[in-house]
Amino acid sequence: MKYYNWGIIGLGEIATSFTNSFQQENSQITAVASRTLSKAVAFANEHDIPKAYGSFEALLADQAIDIVYIAVPNRQHIEHILKALAAGKHVLCEKAITMNSAELTQAMTLAEEKGLILAEAMTIFNMPLYQELRSQIDSNRFGKLKMIQAPFGSYKEPDPSNRFFNPDLAGGALLDIGTYAVSFARWFFTSQPKVIASVMQPFSTGVDEQSATILQNDVQEMATVSLSFQAKMPKQGVVAFEDAYIVINEYPRADEAKIFFNDGTVETIVSGDSTQALNYEITNMIKMIEGETSNRSLFLTKDVIDLLDQMQQNWTN
Amino acid sequence: MKYYNWGIIGLGEIATSFTNSFQQENSQITAVASRTLSKAVAFANEHDIPKAYGSFEALLADQAIDIVYIAVPNRQHIEHILKALAAGKHVLCEKAITMNSAELTQAMTLAEEKGLILAEAMTIFNMPLYQELRSQIDSNRFGKLKMIQAPFGSYKEPDPSNRFFNPDLAGGALLDIGTYAVSFARWFFTSQPKVIASVMQPFSTGVDEQSATILQNDVQEMATVSLSFQAKMPKQGVVAFEDAYIVINEYPRADEAKIFFNDGTVETIVSGDSTQALNYEITNMIKMIEGETSNRSLFLTKDVIDLLDQMQQNWTN
Repeated sequence: MKYYNWGIIGLGEIATSFTNSFQQENSQITAVASRTLSKAVAFANEHDIPKAYGSFEALLADQAIDIVYIAVPNRQHIEHILKALAAGKHVLCEKAITMNSAELTQAMTLAEEKGLILAEAMTIFNMPLYQELRSQIDSNRFGKLKMIQAPFGSYKEPDPSNRFFNPDLAGGALLDIGTYAVSFARWFFTSQPKVIASVMQPFSTGVDEQSATILQNDVQEMATVSLSFQAKMPKQGVVAFEDAYIVINEYPRADEAKIFFNDGTVETIVSGDSTQALNYEITNMIKMIEGETSNRSLFLTKDVIDLLDQMQQNWTN
Repeated sequence: MKYYNWGIIGLGEIATSFTNSFQQENSQITAVASRTLSKAVAFANEHDIPKAYGSFEALLADQAIDIVYIAVPNRQHIEHILKALAAGKHVLCEKAITMNSAELTQAMTLAEEKGLILAEAMTIFNMPLYQELRSQIDSNRFGKLKMIQAPFGSYKEPDPSNRFFNPDLAGGALLDIGTYAVSFARWFFTSQPKVIASVMQPFSTGVDEQSATILQNDVQEMATVSLSFQAKMPKQGVVAFEDAYIVINEYPRADEAKIFFNDGTVETIVSGDSTQALNYEITNMIKMIEGETSNRSLFLTKDVIDLLDQMQQNWTN
């Protein structure tokens, strides 16, 4: 197995969590970049990272870097994904990977042309619990899937200038917390659903303050997705099958699911460690590069971005 | 206070529960009726009820009866409501009170003409917990209402002949369990919502096997309602406000709610006794007849039936 050098672009809160989570035998974080060199140097010093760059381009020009982790604001993702791929780097990009489906298609096309791995840093697609549930579902332990509930509510101070509500910073609940809820639903659907209906309540700045959506696919599996930036809601995902329903609390980073069978039996499945959520993304990225696992998650990511697009189209019709 | 004599029409499972719940100082169950006299006699003997009738008409002709509790199948409700009101009896009718809004309007008009009380035996509108929550909400303890989740799933053996799936017996999830979910949502909405979208999956018999619905009112409160007869789902209602969210487990008959405030505080509200669910309906019926409480619940019932109508219209469009 090759040894991989990672570079990080964008040094905010999530980059810090990512760096703190990084525990790999066959790779290391070799370089970080920020538009402000002093910020990159401070980050590199604090985390014992060898190189610090004052521009994203400088990091991409570093021939030693194999994989770039992109943690800049959502709106800038596509620019840096394309530049990193063009520079021959594999790319792991924070969610939401792009602003829309057209951008993602462009990125996927370039990744394929270059023979590089592109993936979204979506916890749900990488945590062992979800792999374990998928495998039990595929073995038909629970019967047919019928209904999914994916709520996510997070109260944000109603300040038009902060990124959550600022349209210039791609604010709104959908691209921030909606990616989790829709990724959760998509993980369990046996085929791509479509948006049957979606209703949105705008904040004063015009971004989506909250929304409710119905999804359904061609085998009549259904989901409700409810999102709010103006009310906290339990992040409790429910996946209901003919013979049992699954409850996953704090579903974006979960290592435990409770299965309630129709006969009254309750079973707890524990798999993975939710505190290692970001490290699983790193591990799976390397496995995909090594060809050990397929890049299935990118196709789920594409489905999710397509759904987010459809939801937004629903709002403007 | 007057002493009230109750008569029961329709002697199935819910009539047994009703009779067992009946604990009132100022009234008693005086007569029961079934199309089969022997069944009425057996029921009366078992529950120590003075009179048994072999026809509903005979019970309605009994001048001693003040209030009729109707527990026949849904499709027959309207016929017996109208006959009972015409006979000068107050009526407490099992849910769903009528098959549609037009029937309910007819019944409400007659009740008003006759100066009689008509009410639906909907647990949610009668349990002390909901009154207590309503009063705390009205005092603005939790801020503005934003989002409601009202799921109800109940796995029924997929047998086309049983009442759950039989169109001749008004089968389908909506009129059976949907009344609870929509009544739950309606209780918390500050004004009547409309159905923004509803999607339904039919059973082989054509009745609704499951559905998902988005509701919204003119002050942008939203709800998702998900129903299934082919998957069990937790009957956990969630009501999310700006400053706190309320979780009510087993919401159709609940005496406990947990309030999760945004600041991390958790509070448990206990009010009433869920085992007394049906007896609260009886108590409130008498209070309404005595003029001690208004008949607000009938107007909520009307709103709910209007919503069920809209949902069904959505399915056929």
